[in-house]
Amino acid sequence: MPKLAYLGPEGTFTEAAVRALAPDAERLPCANVGAALDAVRSGQADGAVVPLENSLEGGIIQTLDELAWGEPLLIIAEYLLPVEFSLLVRPGTELRQIKRVTTHPAAHTQCRGFIERELSGAVVIPASSTAAAAQEVANPESPYDAAISPAIAGEVYGLEEAASNIGDRNDTVTRFVRVAPPGHVPEPTGADRTSMVAFLKEDHAGALLEMLSEFAVRGVNLTRIESRPTGQGIGSYFFHFDAEGHVADARVGEALSGLHRICSDLRFLGSYPRADRVVTQIRPGTSDGDFSEATDWLTRIRSGRV
Amino acid sequence: MPKLAYLGPEGTFTEAAVRALAPDAERLPCANVGAALDAVRSGQADGAVVPLENSLEGGIIQTLDELAWGEPLLIIAEYLLPVEFSLLVRPGTELRQIKRVTTHPAAHTQCRGFIERELSGAVVIPASSTAAAAQEVANPESPYDAAISPAIAGEVYGLEEAASNIGDRNDTVTRFVRVAPPGHVPEPTGADRTSMVAFLKEDHAGALLEMLSEFAVRGVNLTRIESRPTGQGIGSYFFHFDAEGHVADARVGEALSGLHRICSDLRFLGSYPRADRVVTQIRPGTSDGDFSEATDWLTRIRSGRV
Amino acid sequence: MPKLAYLGPEGTFTEAAVRALAPDAERLPCANVGAALDAVRSGQADGAVVPLENSLEGGIIQTLDELAWGEPLLIIAEYLLPVEFSLLVRPGTELRQIKRVTTHPAAHTQCRGFIERELSGAVVIPASSTAAAAQEVANPESPYDAAISPAIAGEVYGLEEAASNIGDRNDTVTRFVRVAPPGHVPEPTGADRTSMVAFLKEDHAGALLEMLSEFAVRGVNLTRIESRPTGQGIGSYFFHFDAEGHVADARVGEALSGLHRICSDLRFLGSYPRADRVVTQIRPGTSDGDFSEATDWLTRIRSGRV
Amino acid sequence: MPKLAYLGPEGTFTEAAVRALAPDAERLPCANVGAALDAVRSGQADGAVVPLENSLEGGIIQTLDELAWGEPLLIIAEYLLPVEFSLLVRPGTELRQIKRVTTHPAAHTQCRGFIERELSGAVVIPASSTAAAAQEVANPESPYDAAISPAIAGEVYGLEEAASNIGDRNDTVTRFVRVAPPGHVPEPTGADRTSMVAFLKEDHAGALLEMLSEFAVRGVNLTRIESRPTGQGIGSYFFHFDAEGHVADARVGEALSGLHRICSDLRFLGSYPRADRVVTQIRPGTSDGDFSEATDWLTRIRSGRV
Repeated sequence: MPKLAYLGPEGTFTEAAVRALAPDAERLPCANVGAALDAVRSGQADGAVVPLENSLEGGIIQTLDELAWGEPLLIIAEYLLPVEFSLLVRPGTELRQIKRVTTHPAAHTQCRGFIERELSGAVVIPASSTAAAAQEVANPESPYDAAISPAIAGEVYGLEEAASNIGDRNDTVTRFVRVAPPGHVPEPTGADRTSMVAFLKEDHAGALLEMLSEFAVRGVNLTRIESRPTGQGIGSYFFHFDAEGHVADARVGEALSGLHRICSDLRFLGSYPRADRVVTQIRPGTSDGDFSEATDWLTRIRSGRV
Repeated sequence: MPKLAYLGPEGTFTEAAVRALAPDAERLPCANVGAALDAVRSGQADGAVVPLENSLEGGIIQTLDELAWGEPLLIIAEYLLPVEFSLLVRPGTELRQIKRVTTHPAAHTQCRGFIERELSGAVVIPASSTAAAAQEVANPESPYDAAISPAIAGEVYGLEEAASNIGDRNDTVTRFVRVAPPGHVPEPTGADRTSMVAFLKEDHAGALLEMLSEFAVRGVNLTRIESRPTGQGIGSYFFHFDAEGHVADARVGEALSGLHRICSDLRFLGSYPRADRVVTQIRPGTSDGDFSEATDWLTRIRSGRV
Repeated sequence: MPKLAYLGPEGTFTEAAVRALAPDAERLPCANVGAALDAVRSGQADGAVVPLENSLEGGIIQTLDELAWGEPLLIIAEYLLPVEFSLLVRPGTELRQIKRVTTHPAAHTQCRGFIERELSGAVVIPASSTAAAAQEVANPESPYDAAISPAIAGEVYGLEEAASNIGDRNDTVTRFVRVAPPGHVPEPTGADRTSMVAFLKEDHAGALLEMLSEFAVRGVNLTRIESRPTGQGIGSYFFHFDAEGHVADARVGEALSGLHRICSDLRFLGSYPRADRVVTQIRPGTSDGDFSEATDWLTRIRSGRV
Repeated sequence: MPKLAYLGPEGTFTEAAVRALAPDAERLPCANVGAALDAVRSGQADGAVVPLENSLEGGIIQTLDELAWGEPLLIIAEYLLPVEFSLLVRPGTELRQIKRVTTHPAAHTQCRGFIERELSGAVVIPASSTAAAAQEVANPESPYDAAISPAIAGEVYGLEEAASNIGDRNDTVTRFVRVAPPGHVPEPTGADRTSMVAFLKEDHAGALLEMLSEFAVRGVNLTRIESRPTGQGIGSYFFHFDAEGHVADARVGEALSGLHRICSDLRFLGSYPRADRVVTQIRPGTSDGDFSEATDWLTRIRSGRV
């Protein structure tokens, strides 16, 4: 039974992701993303589940930077978790009794419509996390009547759902990844994603265009590109890329090799099955068979057999 | 005397930026970036100063999204503020007396070395902002002995610098922009920057490469590119671009027009003098004179005068 | 009634093209392509019809170089002439009597199958042109029994067709263009072609890729590209391009302007209806309406109305 | 002693090239380029020397098409021969006595200035080749007084130079290649050239741009590109490319493999030392060492050792 570190406390969205990705895993809640990843690096945990991006908020900076700068780890799976908020109360509390609500400010923002509509008289007080809000409300002596939190926090802290799925949008999604110590890359499935971090050799005009060309010329599509500062002053960036396909695919391998040659550093973050199971469309001339035939052809002509 | 809204309270880095950008302006502190920009939209303020990116933290999400989605505003100036932290105390407090420190977690992170070295026995308690920390410490009955804040907060709240420039790095910089209601674009200076937000017509593979090509083919260099989620689910992004040059420059104008044609929406955020005064290098064949000569030539050949 | 110069003598494929392009024109046969074009330049003729390329032989060098280096002229029409050879004899000659055949070597090459099959005992003697061959055979005292020539040469010189369409391939085509003095460019029809000659500013690696990008980024497809030596030594070339569309089209105009800026010289050779009537497919975002909307948008944002 | 076929008769520029490339070779003059190459294919000769391009006239069509369509052969060397014409006469003839000159029309064109200046009263009659002209004049009963031919033709046919280097330009050069049966590719020298012929998979817009990108992305410069009709009608072309570097170079090999994948056919014509000895400039990140390091890196990350 693997032990998986995650962003705690219990009752967070991340815990929900851990349960979905690895129902049988032993769970190790950590104080922050860095601590969860360090637990893997130190061997305290076998893996970690951390948020990578959110469809409203964008990339999770701490994760992006930890994966880029910390001791290398390997992404081996991803999971897309719908972000659904519940209004959690102590058993017996009724909706009309709610006067004081606590939650994380981001959740407050995303549930503004519901609050105005259904809790118009209530005040909302910020908590450090949605799970902490639930934990607080679970205390019978809490000054708060309700927490806005993931449903899972209700299970964890013994609260009831006074209302569920109360977000203003119902299509918000957070993408989580499961990371492991370097070692085994998951087998290709035909519907894979490959993540990497690219540091420019020198930050010249056109460098990004060159990097994108390395993918384009091998028919590899990018699904995400995110710039991050290197810390060396305004104007100096490095890039996170997600590409369709698996590092074992010839076209992906050659694109990564090409990128490696023009980068000062290219960190491979992993190849893993896509959560959405979308099968990679392979452009004519870029299948493994096409690459292998081209390699044979090259061997032949290099020996003069034209 | 213009009135400028900014991210308050008094004593923040943003206030320091306001003072540098517009020493004589009346200052209107606001609760957050959105409120500062809304003050401009409503006419309550003549302009606003907001952080756009930080050399360690990256893009300031709230600013990026407000400029992209809110009622249009125009960036008319930028300022690069070195991020320097001071250890602020009530007059009379000595370094060795400091046991309890308060500051914003980001500042804590950036001053970790100093704290370990000089304040090894002290505990650090989080505050909601570095200015709020200073305000707290200014209270004679505060349980805290010191705040880690910008020096300006010391001036504002009557504290003394027990130590200055205590960050672990001394090259951290925040880039602020001054925004105004739509209207007058600042005159070109030869050392300008142009900011914009591009929404893809359809999110197809190669779309980013196409957008970059619109710049490259007219010899326009990008200095920043930042992807942001559209909110329409994982995998759907829009882009912030900063380009060298001014919208009045022929090459920039044509690049923006080209981008406009392939985007579902292209929002112009402004052209303004670069804070670093770096003069735009113009690639041969892309000066205004080159463009104007080419236009004359085209007019001529269209009438058959070859 | 216009007077059109062409590559004579009477009875050539070029004459057939003149008849097709301008049935009512007065025809002025010339000794070579250069002479035909000079007749236009001097005002001796109103226009000229010259071959530009052949689907077997490729570009007609003399035409390409004359249009590139000589006094400028304008292509105003094109015509695709199927290359069909006839075996022409004096009236009364029968196939089995033919022992000595004369024709131009290129025609010989293209009719080799017929000759081996039907004229196996005959010898073939080279003539300076297929029309000259017919003229020669028309002489009752000619030592030759037959000429391989275009059918039109039979009409001109009073010969009979002993066999028609005797080429080994029946899909060979020559593309002719009608040129006029600089002046009026034909109106756009939606199915147009634009020809030009591009001289590199400096012959650097990647120059051709840059030129092609000027077209690609505006959605303009090329239908022909032909390199020619500049005369300045091996390795120095200039380029003939044919593009889809008309110089009056916004996307073509901007592409040509862009090319003009990066070339030491760009010579516009004309925009004219395609002989094959293939309507230009316009890529989304590159119609005249798209360009005009983008221009309006640019005007607007330049004045700060974002 | 190798036997080399070449475009005869004796006394041509090609013979001069053969003598320069292989002074000790036995020479086998052939009627045309095709015959010379067929002599190699049949084993009658060990190799052939044929003209590939001329700095005034451009590509030699017969050679280009023979190398593209005929049984494969391998280019193993190249030679740049300055094209210098001499005025050849029978011993004793003086310049002022020359009334009738014979030469090939191309030579006539290139010596027009000299003829007008020094032979103003003379007529010029076309010959089938410059060597044939010299052979004709060598006949004491010839009606011609002089031939315009390469100096070598004077040696061969016993004529004297009445004037030398009489061309209007003194920088005209013809590039010859030595071809051999498929087998051994010459060793890389660091100053090599690689020739190939590329047939498009389907003749779509942008195909040429894609092909050029295969070279560009691996840092391989092209020194020549020549389009030729496929014979399948106007608008259908294939391409001859000359690239810097050797097929044994990693970057050239990968570019050729890439091209092979997107082409319906890619014919390798050979890698051989450049006649001009210009050493290939290697773009950072594209040396053999860079490629080999990238391959090692890829192997490592594919096994999860990040």
